[in-house]
Amino acid sequence: AEHDITPLHPECNYIDILSQHLALLSKGEPILKPVYQHKDGTFGPPVHVSPNPFTVVEGLLGYHTEEMRDCYDVRVFLALPEELRRRWKVQRDTSKRGYTEDQVLADLDKREPDSAQFICPQERHADMVVTFKEGDNGDPYALDAELLLRDSLPQPDLSPFIGKSDRGMTIEEGDSERRICIAGDIESEQAAEIEEAIWDKLHFASHLRSENLGEVRVGDEVHRSDSLGVVQLLILYHMATAKAAVALGGAGPRAEAEAEDAEDPAKMES
Amino acid sequence: AEHDITPLHPECNYIDILSQHLALLSKGEPILKPVYQHKDGTFGPPVHVSPNPFTVVEGLLGYHTEEMRDCYDVRVFLALPEELRRRWKVQRDTSKRGYTEDQVLADLDKREPDSAQFICPQERHADMVVTFKEGDNGDPYALDAELLLRDSLPQPDLSPFIGKSDRGMTIEEGDSERRICIAGDIESEQAAEIEEAIWDKLHFASHLRSENLGEVRVGDEVHRSDSLGVVQLLILYHMATAKAAVALGGAGPRAEAEAEDAEDPAKMES
Repeated sequence: AEHDITPLHPECNYIDILSQHLALLSKGEPILKPVYQHKDGTFGPPVHVSPNPFTVVEGLLGYHTEEMRDCYDVRVFLALPEELRRRWKVQRDTSKRGYTEDQVLADLDKREPDSAQFICPQERHADMVVTFKEGDNGDPYALDAELLLRDSLPQPDLSPFIGKSDRGMTIEEGDSERRICIAGDIESEQAAEIEEAIWDKLHFASHLRSENLGEVRVGDEVHRSDSLGVVQLLILYHMATAKAAVALGGAGPRAEAEAEDAEDPAKMES
Repeated sequence: AEHDITPLHPECNYIDILSQHLALLSKGEPILKPVYQHKDGTFGPPVHVSPNPFTVVEGLLGYHTEEMRDCYDVRVFLALPEELRRRWKVQRDTSKRGYTEDQVLADLDKREPDSAQFICPQERHADMVVTFKEGDNGDPYALDAELLLRDSLPQPDLSPFIGKSDRGMTIEEGDSERRICIAGDIESEQAAEIEEAIWDKLHFASHLRSENLGEVRVGDEVHRSDSLGVVQLLILYHMATAKAAVALGGAGPRAEAEAEDAEDPAKMES
């Protein structure tokens, strides 16, 4: 606030330290992670984070520099429709962070320029862009999922599962990307068939099979969303594949995809 | 010879040390490997062997005890028809070890009882039993390959590639195993299609793709056997899958297959 910038502005963050920490964790080194305190905007005691086989990084500026982007095996960008994004943020900040709805909405408006300048442009660096939309029935736990899958990672072929009707799943093939829509009211049998095909390609990771994919917990209630389950499994697919490739001495699927791109003159021109 | 036993007899080998060395290598520890000298039957200077991401163990008594068998992620047993086995051994020992054909054949006869008692019974512990047979055309570089694939490891489904004619590939499904025959004169296109399907399941290991599978080098000559190539790729499939599963924190495909077996009461009864 002193510098008249919002938390979305890179200068409001220790981007250099964030970048350093991402690189350290990806090299298997520990970090001392700063802890921001929402209650007063200061830092509390930092926490020691040991390197793990998998590191999930959530945040707003994770793909800000090329150095940072190079640390990820899988890059996911959540691009919600504005209305849903505002509603979710209001819900979280009024229930968990003690703000009023008006405060949250005013803050969102104030952040809008920084969001447009720094957050949104990161979308183009993602391997997967994930969107959720409310369907016609308005069920908040059965949202339509829309996925943009880019060729920056080799994507599993889901075309055998395209539905004949407008329900279920549709795929739109582009030049170096494909757009997949999974209806919130997809038949559970069709979703299970798609998930089975992805697990089949994850035959080396069958011990990771989980019944919890697609679960949405709200307090003690457990809802299940099949479209969310497929999205989560696709993310798991890329994480497990990257881990396996590196364990076998490979450079990882991203490097393979780039090498393939470089060999294909048609793609280089585009 | 002093004990009137052949090299095939366990007491003619330091089985305890062999077992210890297998366990050490599988745990990532180095060993000091003894080196047997064919010229006089004594040991030469031992060699230091560092643990590697993959260890290939070739030998006669590798599956002798349960402790030893537990060290392998993939167990392959080469069970040649007697005539081919004798011919290959004569070729090797007369060209590389300085014996006459009569000496080799006499030695084979002398070893026969120990072979039957100690070597052959190990076959039942293999995940893959590999046999080669000469086809009708007598081409020594295009042998028919016969594979017994057991359910002790989850096997990739090759049934979509069964040929309609008696050439190519046939599969015979058993209760807990399947027998696959790959003709020595299989069309290269069909072999390539089978290999492509296996590589598709090895999508996380595409950096291991090699043009050398199926090559038979005799001096400066390079022959290519498509049936051998498919066999080698199946072995690679299991090695890469086991490595990937362990890297992802799993116990490995063998443990998964055993757990599945234990859950299936129909299989427990058999």
